[in-house]
Amino acid sequence: MKPKVTKRTAADLKDEARTLCPVARAELVVGDRWTVLVLRELFAGNHRFEEIQAQAGATPQMVAARLKQLEADGLIARRPYHERPKRHEYYLTEKGEAFFPVILALRQWGETWVKSPKEGLSVTYTHSLCGGPAGLGTVCETCGKPLHRKDLIATMNPVYKRERDARLAAFRARR
Amino acid sequence: MKPKVTKRTAADLKDEARTLCPVARAELVVGDRWTVLVLRELFAGNHRFEEIQAQAGATPQMVAARLKQLEADGLIARRPYHERPKRHEYYLTEKGEAFFPVILALRQWGETWVKSPKEGLSVTYTHSLCGGPAGLGTVCETCGKPLHRKDLIATMNPVYKRERDARLAAFRARR
Repeated sequence: MKPKVTKRTAADLKDEARTLCPVARAELVVGDRWTVLVLRELFAGNHRFEEIQAQAGATPQMVAARLKQLEADGLIARRPYHERPKRHEYYLTEKGEAFFPVILALRQWGETWVKSPKEGLSVTYTHSLCGGPAGLGTVCETCGKPLHRKDLIATMNPVYKRERDARLAAFRARR
Repeated sequence: MKPKVTKRTAADLKDEARTLCPVARAELVVGDRWTVLVLRELFAGNHRFEEIQAQAGATPQMVAARLKQLEADGLIARRPYHERPKRHEYYLTEKGEAFFPVILALRQWGETWVKSPKEGLSVTYTHSLCGGPAGLGTVCETCGKPLHRKDLIATMNPVYKRERDARLAAFRARR
């Protein structure tokens, strides 16, 4: 783990980054809804521009700008998967992977406070280390250990699965 | 704890809120850097407009808009503390307090990945339940229990304290 200072624009750094507060410094990088949705898709295992755009529900320009900035900030890296035309897949770096607890915390807050219980959870996690349900927090509700993405087995709510499939199909139909 | 569905604008609800994803739903409410900075100040115990504005470093219009939206979304409540002119203090509701794990997770990521280790932590927490250092995560590094805001004793880095004092003084001098 090699922490590094993130460079943003000169204007940002001049004033706003001149703070010791880690929340303010983090928000300079991830304080944008679309950026978080792009990261969510990468955590969900979608690595291609089309899938990310379809599920984030943003314009190509918006997604491209976020991917470019996330790469500049060191959270993601590109790998070519096609030549002529050149196409890239996007992957989380160690710095990007380290953002997962924020996603888990947002998930817990969102499930509890911004949705109706009737709607049901979008995804249920099983903790592979103990075999029990992981629950909604950042630590496993069964064994109490902090949750890491690689130890979580996701079961998608069929309603959410249909929502995502429909979104991708609609996106492709529009092209 | 009584979860409820947050109403945003009709336009938001029509399309973007029509998702089971709790991260997307949460980001409709808190997916804005200034909103998170306002919440940070409330968690830090600053309840008045002037203090929040000074430390967030935003314009009065920006802070007022965020406070209004946070109130509409049920994360904060206003209490009058002065008549003529009418002045309010802002407090976190249960829904707002429940956002604390996201702040902790952002803090951990920010301290580790968006700052240089030489800068030092802005705030160190002691976990009052066990008496040990709480560490950087969402669970206590000493006793392993999930961290709640009320159980954390903050020690501010003197450099960060000076930074905040200077910001407030400069803000007042400009008025």
